[in-house]
Amino acid sequence: MTLPQTMRALIQKQDGYSRASQRSGFSLEALDPYVEMAAIDVPAPGKGQVLVKVARGAVNPSDVMFIKGMYGQPRRKGLPAGFEGCGTVVATGEGAEQFDGKRIAFVTGNSGYGSWAEYAVADAAMCIPLMDGISDDDGASMIVNPLTALAMISIVKEAGAESFILTAAASQLCKLIIAQAAADGLSAIGTVRRDEQIEPLKALGAAHVLNQKSDTFSSDMRDICRADKPVVMLDAVAGPSSAAVFEAMGRGARWIIYGRLEEEPPVLREPGEMIFLQKRIEGFWLSRWLTEAGDQERAQLVKKAQTNFIDGLWKTDVTEVLALEDAADRLANALAQPNGKVLLSP
Amino acid sequence: MTLPQTMRALIQKQDGYSRASQRSGFSLEALDPYVEMAAIDVPAPGKGQVLVKVARGAVNPSDVMFIKGMYGQPRRKGLPAGFEGCGTVVATGEGAEQFDGKRIAFVTGNSGYGSWAEYAVADAAMCIPLMDGISDDDGASMIVNPLTALAMISIVKEAGAESFILTAAASQLCKLIIAQAAADGLSAIGTVRRDEQIEPLKALGAAHVLNQKSDTFSSDMRDICRADKPVVMLDAVAGPSSAAVFEAMGRGARWIIYGRLEEEPPVLREPGEMIFLQKRIEGFWLSRWLTEAGDQERAQLVKKAQTNFIDGLWKTDVTEVLALEDAADRLANALAQPNGKVLLSP
Repeated sequence: MTLPQTMRALIQKQDGYSRASQRSGFSLEALDPYVEMAAIDVPAPGKGQVLVKVARGAVNPSDVMFIKGMYGQPRRKGLPAGFEGCGTVVATGEGAEQFDGKRIAFVTGNSGYGSWAEYAVADAAMCIPLMDGISDDDGASMIVNPLTALAMISIVKEAGAESFILTAAASQLCKLIIAQAAADGLSAIGTVRRDEQIEPLKALGAAHVLNQKSDTFSSDMRDICRADKPVVMLDAVAGPSSAAVFEAMGRGARWIIYGRLEEEPPVLREPGEMIFLQKRIEGFWLSRWLTEAGDQERAQLVKKAQTNFIDGLWKTDVTEVLALEDAADRLANALAQPNGKVLLSP
Repeated sequence: MTLPQTMRALIQKQDGYSRASQRSGFSLEALDPYVEMAAIDVPAPGKGQVLVKVARGAVNPSDVMFIKGMYGQPRRKGLPAGFEGCGTVVATGEGAEQFDGKRIAFVTGNSGYGSWAEYAVADAAMCIPLMDGISDDDGASMIVNPLTALAMISIVKEAGAESFILTAAASQLCKLIIAQAAADGLSAIGTVRRDEQIEPLKALGAAHVLNQKSDTFSSDMRDICRADKPVVMLDAVAGPSSAAVFEAMGRGARWIIYGRLEEEPPVLREPGEMIFLQKRIEGFWLSRWLTEAGDQERAQLVKKAQTNFIDGLWKTDVTEVLALEDAADRLANALAQPNGKVLLSP
């Protein structure tokens, strides 16, 4: 197959990390300060790598954090963003030949050549051959959200909890978690910011869904915590509303932060509860969790993720599929829509 | 031995816990709202308990938290406060006869009859026969601070840390920790609020001591953290200054809260560090730790504590020994003195 010399890509405008003083929340106010459209050389895959013709690039919260310089790895100016996507392998480096011509889901990790481009580079270890019956829209988000969801269910089970709390529960990720929890007999308690998000999440299997803007939110959450005794909060918000939920939780509560949607930082009003109620606060990062999980558990989760989509337990709600050229104008607004996933189509 | 019918005691004026809205810091503004002098019946020891003629009652931060209704167990109106002390056993319940006439250190746990009185009741399991060579002043603080110090050294070692941070490092507890750390080759980094506390702590073996009121505190702490890489902060403060230290710490930092000296609550300005730097926040409560440690480790620590005093590695700096009658007027002021322990002498 003959490859073109150059490709269209959304490349990063900065190197490294942003300074603490420049940081805001993890939502995207506009794409332009961080990323621009450009034509760059199509890369060659290195040893153990594959070159993918991208069908869909995903836009995850982690991508937004990354391009803003707030993620756990440094930006690289002039190279395409986008951690995840799906497509077809069009060239392979030494040791990655088994993927030649395959349709795969991938994450680009540290390759530097992300999925917001016509071609991306991924390590063979980060590629999953897609089963028949998985659409491009589902395939583009086959790794980050599904594995995060399964990892979090695993954390809840290891904690011996029969119920747990999800903040920002209307996200695509949380929908996967809620469906899996219901299938596993776990009781998911979600918080949202709009009344119209409540019923759809209950229909997915959530045990309780509370609007955090309701006047009775804190007392309602306290009542639910007293009755259901959730000991894990999976928190995408990391703000004052998360702190309020943590205060409502009882003995042994674990506040597990994996994102930040509120700009105002949380205040620990009752640090004595860390002492006497054995509460604690920690973080979750998929990259780290997968490293610690080991090959066997990873392989099981990858298989289960695809099976869940094929069986219909999971589906991807797509808000919008944008051309790369339209991202500058429309991505921030599309991400601000409440209930779905935004994908890029090169 | 003939016992009197009644005794003098500092008894509690409230039951249960204080409301969240009534809570302030863990320091004592005045004794009078919480405790009053009274004559009450001398109790009889129950099964497995001893009655102790108190030589010295200790005043620990946990006592202050308890009488303010902010500790992990409820107050009992009309009964004496005081978790710890030393004295001589003058009566025993069934199964505690082995302590008859013995000079012991004790904690009163849930007995209800605390050490701020002429007589106290303790479970035999919470009594330690005092070795010769231990003074009453050392014996009065033989359990809570020494076992906390040894438990914390154990936590630091289990974390694989070669250095760790102590806030409010001029406390009696922290002096024990610093001396033990130096003996074990661990590097203790202390924070204090007065310049004159710096040199005495360095003389005890602290590697670094910083005044948190210094203009260069945050940058100095950052430099030390970069060089020494402490991963544990043992925190008696639980306020904004603790949060500043936590921000200065690097990957894997554990903020372990065991007290609260600042009324202003801490703010988590960088929740993303919980995710990407695997930082976490938890609490330490001696009662809980001892329960989890098991009999053998507890017995070893109890022995080591006394040996440390006899060997001269540890000593108790006593600010003041107050008669029970003088506590109402003088206890709060004595506790506000920076560097020593306050004891009560019935």
